Amino acid sequence: MLARRVLAEFIGTALLLVAVVGSGIAAQRLSPGDTGLQLLENAAATAVALVAIILAVGPVSGAHLNPAVTVADRLFGGLDNATAGAYVGAQVAGGALGAVVANLMFDLPAVEWSTTDRSGGHLWLGEVVATFGLLLVVFGVVRSGRGSVAPFAVGAYIGGAYFFTSSTGFANPAVTLARTLSDTFAGIEPASVPAFVVAQLAGAALAVGAVRVLYPHIAEAAGEVVVPHPADEEEAHDGARAPARHRQRL
Amino acid sequence: MLARRVLAEFIGTALLLVAVVGSGIAAQRLSPGDTGLQLLENAAATAVALVAIILAVGPVSGAHLNPAVTVADRLFGGLDNATAGAYVGAQVAGGALGAVVANLMFDLPAVEWSTTDRSGGHLWLGEVVATFGLLLVVFGVVRSGRGSVAPFAVGAYIGGAYFFTSSTGFANPAVTLARTLSDTFAGIEPASVPAFVVAQLAGAALAVGAVRVLYPHIAEAAGEVVVPHPADEEEAHDGARAPARHRQRL
Amino acid sequence: MLARRVLAEFIGTALLLVAVVGSGIAAQRLSPGDTGLQLLENAAATAVALVAIILAVGPVSGAHLNPAVTVADRLFGGLDNATAGAYVGAQVAGGALGAVVANLMFDLPAVEWSTTDRSGGHLWLGEVVATFGLLLVVFGVVRSGRGSVAPFAVGAYIGGAYFFTSSTGFANPAVTLARTLSDTFAGIEPASVPAFVVAQLAGAALAVGAVRVLYPHIAEAAGEVVVPHPADEEEAHDGARAPARHRQRL
Amino acid sequence: MLARRVLAEFIGTALLLVAVVGSGIAAQRLSPGDTGLQLLENAAATAVALVAIILAVGPVSGAHLNPAVTVADRLFGGLDNATAGAYVGAQVAGGALGAVVANLMFDLPAVEWSTTDRSGGHLWLGEVVATFGLLLVVFGVVRSGRGSVAPFAVGAYIGGAYFFTSSTGFANPAVTLARTLSDTFAGIEPASVPAFVVAQLAGAALAVGAVRVLYPHIAEAAGEVVVPHPADEEEAHDGARAPARHRQRL
Repeated sequence: MLARRVLAEFIGTALLLVAVVGSGIAAQRLSPGDTGLQLLENAAATAVALVAIILAVGPVSGAHLNPAVTVADRLFGGLDNATAGAYVGAQVAGGALGAVVANLMFDLPAVEWSTTDRSGGHLWLGEVVATFGLLLVVFGVVRSGRGSVAPFAVGAYIGGAYFFTSSTGFANPAVTLARTLSDTFAGIEPASVPAFVVAQLAGAALAVGAVRVLYPHIAEAAGEVVVPHPADEEEAHDGARAPARHRQRL
Repeated sequence: MLARRVLAEFIGTALLLVAVVGSGIAAQRLSPGDTGLQLLENAAATAVALVAIILAVGPVSGAHLNPAVTVADRLFGGLDNATAGAYVGAQVAGGALGAVVANLMFDLPAVEWSTTDRSGGHLWLGEVVATFGLLLVVFGVVRSGRGSVAPFAVGAYIGGAYFFTSSTGFANPAVTLARTLSDTFAGIEPASVPAFVVAQLAGAALAVGAVRVLYPHIAEAAGEVVVPHPADEEEAHDGARAPARHRQRL
Repeated sequence: MLARRVLAEFIGTALLLVAVVGSGIAAQRLSPGDTGLQLLENAAATAVALVAIILAVGPVSGAHLNPAVTVADRLFGGLDNATAGAYVGAQVAGGALGAVVANLMFDLPAVEWSTTDRSGGHLWLGEVVATFGLLLVVFGVVRSGRGSVAPFAVGAYIGGAYFFTSSTGFANPAVTLARTLSDTFAGIEPASVPAFVVAQLAGAALAVGAVRVLYPHIAEAAGEVVVPHPADEEEAHDGARAPARHRQRL
Repeated sequence: MLARRVLAEFIGTALLLVAVVGSGIAAQRLSPGDTGLQLLENAAATAVALVAIILAVGPVSGAHLNPAVTVADRLFGGLDNATAGAYVGAQVAGGALGAVVANLMFDLPAVEWSTTDRSGGHLWLGEVVATFGLLLVVFGVVRSGRGSVAPFAVGAYIGGAYFFTSSTGFANPAVTLARTLSDTFAGIEPASVPAFVVAQLAGAALAVGAVRVLYPHIAEAAGEVVVPHPADEEEAHDGARAPARHRQRL
């Protein structure tokens, strides 16, 4: 049922932003002397939370949690326009809720626009690289029928990208938008958002091209991104009745 | 046999508290200059210990190790009232023993009431969020027949929640009670406990609702929380004789 | 063939000590200001190295790498006296070689007796707890037919035990002996060794009792400790010819 | 198709160098006070990125990403001379591109020769040990039919080797060459490269000998290094048509 899948994207992205923004605030407050240590704490918390969140809601919606993933998956035929649109809406709304909850948890105003400028060609290159790599990981893993390790692959990649890209690896338009709502460690000022999103979409486009070359049969697996999820969870409630397509890859 | 399962919950929760309280003391002593680094050490040690403990005792009792999990699983029909009561008792008693052992290991009095005040609406919201997420992860994973990754999912989630919630992610009434027994890094003064437990139960209630919507057939898997475990380990001593329900999901 | 299995224990334990002693030296030199950070670096490097080493040599010998594991497995009937003796000899010799290699890699004398006093009742309690938990994890995982995750379970546990036990979780007589050969971060002076080993054996004895109660059929799985390994690797060179006992659990 | 596999090696090694060099730059800038913490950040980011990259491109090319692996695999008969040569070329070229991208991402000149001297007998011993261990892990895991955990095994090993070897575990000639192109944390001056590569090849030779003894039937699995990958991805686009050799090990 579409509503259930959209709810899963909403809750999953909300929890993701709770993790991203919340651990950023905690790191900033608890390790004031060392920005690297703050980022390490933020990256580690985000990575492990992401693993858990994908495992939790992935079997319902696939756990895209990222409009770049959803758009790329739409291009590969993994979902239709209506579903893709609903997913993106849920991701953006869920992300905003998560940032607000993080603010409130740490006794901050529900919304405080970030004043952190993040602009410059080298940072945009960072977002291109970050998103390119993320989508390569997502589609490479699912294409090879290894969807059961996708949660770990994505968590590992994002945790690393916080450090190995100059932009700290946003790689996600919904996350980028939501981070404008907190003037803390993970924030980004609204004016820096458009270029970040453009860079993310450019990285996604590059990845779509690379995936088509590396995995010519990607369309057959596109419906299982990020992790295998029956079109209708009802179908899967009894293992024996789950569609063969999904079972053979689990 | 119920006694064996209850013993598994007792030993498992004791080891969990050894890890939580013990690594907190070590972190506090060894990294005196940076609270964030202390929490990182405490979180990392707790997360990996939790993975190992769930893998060790999970096949006997499921490794709930947490009254919030047991109560939610009772609501879903995963175990009966007598078993749930015995589990909770074992968790509380085991947790207390673990805190005492941690104190003794670090040359402290067996019991020293914590004097760390942890109260405030934003911290309670932290506990609501932490417990909501934990239960979503636990039941989402088991519902999707991915019980074999549950130990990693739970360890990852808790490790992250130490940082991304303002309350450092207790998310467990038995752990909360046991932490009153050590006046060290992980401690919580007794007066702060009731509100924490109420917040945890509120988060659990929210999660139960969300799980019912996301996973309408959760009742069928509730007996396999946190990891699949035969009702009687005897049944499983020969792989061929294990109930089909468990084998298909391993 | 026994020689091959013994060689696997020798190489595996040597690499383990390279990791334990080597990362201790690196941590001490590179993070001079914070003992907690040193221990975090030492623990993380040891944990991940241990995962990789068990995966590498486990399919040959089981990757005991620890006389406490070998003795306990002997008690459960997992191997005979001659094999157990050869394993322990290889572990002690391999451990010593690893410590020497670590010293040489860091431009230190091949052998330098440690002068680090590690004694006191609370530290011995730490070793009892550390070894008890380790063996519970090892035998619990293998008993439940989850041998394929044993490398991760053991690495996770040891990484955590570095922090959550007061003694930094040696939990291994061969490792304890080898650490006397390097007067660096991970060292232990020879005079402190006997009590550590006694404590480790006490913890092992407690674990054997607990495992017998929790897993009454442990003897059937004892031959697969720490990870499944055919009695003769020859037998396994063709998947189809591997003994059914091993295949069903992989 | 060879071209696709070579492209996978090129992209994979490029991303690996982005991770190695990029996280080194970030660590150096963000944690200026503590070299150990810098190395921890660099090691953690490299390890998790490596896991994700191997999962992403491994099903196409096996994800050697390392001439030492390719040469050893050639010796075991896992690929022919032409393929081995093409792999090594792609690894060297991809690595160089990755280092350049890392420089640009962090607003540095595209190429800046490193001035970091890394020479001395103890460092060369470090490289011998690092490469020996890496190849033992790679071939041990694949030989035992556990190719599905190889990405985690390799990531874990390399992350640990950053700390437990004195040379910070380069263990890869292509990575060594590429690191000359950035005068930052992970750099190595060109004059130090030849001895490093010789040491790496010596470690590889030792590992080839050890693997032959420990795993006498290694030749049968050599075609699946580092992870199982059909000779032609076309063959695998439908699970049912994948060669039995690969399916039985997945």
